[in-house]
Amino acid sequence: MVKALVFDVQGTATDFHSTVCDEARRVDAGRHPSVDWAEVVRRWRGGYFAALEDAQRRARGWVSVHSVYRAALDTVLDERGIGLSAAERDELTLAWRRLRPWPDAVPGLTRLKTRYTLATLSNADVSAVIAVSKGAGLPWDAVFAAEMAGVFKPDPRSYAMVATYLGLEPVEIMMVASHKYDIRAAGRLGFRTAFVARPMEFGAGGDADVTYSTEFDLNASDFLDLADQLGC
Amino acid sequence: MVKALVFDVQGTATDFHSTVCDEARRVDAGRHPSVDWAEVVRRWRGGYFAALEDAQRRARGWVSVHSVYRAALDTVLDERGIGLSAAERDELTLAWRRLRPWPDAVPGLTRLKTRYTLATLSNADVSAVIAVSKGAGLPWDAVFAAEMAGVFKPDPRSYAMVATYLGLEPVEIMMVASHKYDIRAAGRLGFRTAFVARPMEFGAGGDADVTYSTEFDLNASDFLDLADQLGC
Repeated sequence: MVKALVFDVQGTATDFHSTVCDEARRVDAGRHPSVDWAEVVRRWRGGYFAALEDAQRRARGWVSVHSVYRAALDTVLDERGIGLSAAERDELTLAWRRLRPWPDAVPGLTRLKTRYTLATLSNADVSAVIAVSKGAGLPWDAVFAAEMAGVFKPDPRSYAMVATYLGLEPVEIMMVASHKYDIRAAGRLGFRTAFVARPMEFGAGGDADVTYSTEFDLNASDFLDLADQLGC
Repeated sequence: MVKALVFDVQGTATDFHSTVCDEARRVDAGRHPSVDWAEVVRRWRGGYFAALEDAQRRARGWVSVHSVYRAALDTVLDERGIGLSAAERDELTLAWRRLRPWPDAVPGLTRLKTRYTLATLSNADVSAVIAVSKGAGLPWDAVFAAEMAGVFKPDPRSYAMVATYLGLEPVEIMMVASHKYDIRAAGRLGFRTAFVARPMEFGAGGDADVTYSTEFDLNASDFLDLADQLGC
């Protein structure tokens, strides 16, 4: 029945927390030894989410996610009085284009690709999804992003766009994410749903929701488990 | 300077003529021994082009390329009194989703991928480009199609869309095609241009334009030659 799997990228396929923390420490180069960079990155990601929600509420048209991250970084650094130059902030924002894959991502996707069409649906800019995927070696058959629909997930138009471009009915597509709001939104349109637990999504001190639920068609511990459950 | 290569698919990366001819003979199963299937396929492709131009002139909104091929097949078969059933015509139209790559395509793209972002810009439906690419093993970093812009090549909006999604300036992108109208249109927007000669695009009796021209940044005999010239 399911012919295509559509994946969230930031958090589900890639470990943004450790990547961005490492980049922050590299750019800071030890000048702010008392800063808890893990907490800064969690706040940064939180600011990004709030800005996306705000953009959606105001329906102001498209905003590049790169610019959203850049502005949210200013807020979090300025709140904490962390002095990084504009060039350093630009450089650090590029970390979101260099995200490392979770260790199971490439081997899991490689197995899943033998039987399914694999695509992304990310809120990140198309160019960022391409950069992350190329850098990480994520073997998608197609890259789709909210930018192509002009609205962010969980707007139903973003999922509907994917069904149109895949030429499939929603029931033939499984949305895979570590964020329940994402797969719930796809499920409301008739997509199949797979929840993947990513306990380290926000780092060791984070509070990632990893609770399996029968409301989803599948619950998996990682992409290898997903491949097992889908018979790949 | 160039960071991404954008490829036409039907004819440039894939050998539609031999694939569709073979499928026509398979579906016909010898019932019409006097039919020149190569000529039928050339007329079919011609009917598809005429229909795209017509759609563009009338600006009637999006038409799926699958439906364009299906209607153009009716015309060419009915003109010649070739009796295939509706189911057989549906089956034969699917041949355009199963196109074989030119022998140099996968090895050439694999070399080019080490240095460049590789994407498509096809007039075929997104779902068809995905099906062809997955079947042929074409290792794109991203699949773009005219469907995503809502206008067919050579409409400048289709090339502009690709530049936006790649996050690059036109001069950082090279359009690669065996059709001069396609790379000329991209060139008018500031893209770099590469012409690839495909002498067998319309089969042994076809009249493919394979003349190199200094109006393009590169002229190549196939994707391996393109990789050589681009230092990959």
